[in-house]
Amino acid sequence: MENWIDVTMTISPSIMVYKNKEEKKPKFIVRATHEENGHHESSLCLDLHTGTHIDMPKHMIKDGKTSDEFELSSVNGTCFVVDFSKHPSHEVDEAFLKAYEFSPGDMVFIKTKNSFDQQFNYDYDYLNASGAEWLKNQGVKAVGIDALGIERNAPGHPTHHILLGNGIYIIEGLDLSKVDEGRYECLCMPLKIAGVEGLPARILLKPY
Amino acid sequence: MENWIDVTMTISPSIMVYKNKEEKKPKFIVRATHEENGHHESSLCLDLHTGTHIDMPKHMIKDGKTSDEFELSSVNGTCFVVDFSKHPSHEVDEAFLKAYEFSPGDMVFIKTKNSFDQQFNYDYDYLNASGAEWLKNQGVKAVGIDALGIERNAPGHPTHHILLGNGIYIIEGLDLSKVDEGRYECLCMPLKIAGVEGLPARILLKPY
Repeated sequence: MENWIDVTMTISPSIMVYKNKEEKKPKFIVRATHEENGHHESSLCLDLHTGTHIDMPKHMIKDGKTSDEFELSSVNGTCFVVDFSKHPSHEVDEAFLKAYEFSPGDMVFIKTKNSFDQQFNYDYDYLNASGAEWLKNQGVKAVGIDALGIERNAPGHPTHHILLGNGIYIIEGLDLSKVDEGRYECLCMPLKIAGVEGLPARILLKPY
Repeated sequence: MENWIDVTMTISPSIMVYKNKEEKKPKFIVRATHEENGHHESSLCLDLHTGTHIDMPKHMIKDGKTSDEFELSSVNGTCFVVDFSKHPSHEVDEAFLKAYEFSPGDMVFIKTKNSFDQQFNYDYDYLNASGAEWLKNQGVKAVGIDALGIERNAPGHPTHHILLGNGIYIIEGLDLSKVDEGRYECLCMPLKIAGVEGLPARILLKPY
């Protein structure tokens, strides 16, 4: 796996979760120990939107598709990382994204100041509706961001609807702190779970 | 992802689990719905040895390493699939494996009759200690099998100890029903979880 950069958050009891909500924190349950059982075995209870994960349309769209209709080709392939981390604003919009040229079928990952936060920042950087609309019009197939929510407190969740409603998958919870702007090959391997609205994933990038 | 064969079990409420144990069955908890909350969100409670997963040494060795010391290179690379599925016996042993030539650093996946079971079979095919010893001596780096346990009711778990005790990772719960014997490239991407003894994974094979 030489030259691949791991952009996945580590799932641990202290992982940063959206708005520090208790129910979003993973629970580790030890069910057998060497002392008592001669082996060690544990379970993990995980909100499917904790850590690095892919949103399925069903997450925000009432009759949206679940993981049953998800295909790996939707989130693997060429990925362009744009660097918003030095931008003074918190809002990734059309004006910022227009400076880039994407090709239909590209994935776009947005690196922001969030990748450097050590604890949950309520003023996190996010993608607004104009930015989502512009990415949709470029024909990108997936959009990723280093935020635990791709938008922030937006009534009606327009960013989610613009993307998921047009077959564009959303990847949240990336760690892009070690990734420079540029073109990459993306390897995105979610768990294979039936009928759900979110898929935890392992995601790697390799420079082109 | 053309030409890649998915060898991962699908995690669902009805997934086959080891000895049909209730505590091994995944639990899906819906925590928000479109009707009540305007979006859909759920959690998954998963035994880390349910479905397709990698055993860390800690699973069977008291002071064994956890996922904190796991590296992706240990389970990615060249993989040789051997076909035991037509063999009359249930026990994969040295005599069977000796017919193959593996190179140091290869991974070996053992396809058995288990891949065609529709429910848990208490007489499942497994790898015995002589087979594990032989694979260890060939210098393979990981051993996978389409069983939910790589050995069967063996006092002291010798197969686990021979492999995990020598830095050879064990992959259990493969679905090899669609894979023929031969040489493959293996892509094995586990969730990134801190400090645990088992890692659920997405695993694909591509013919060489």
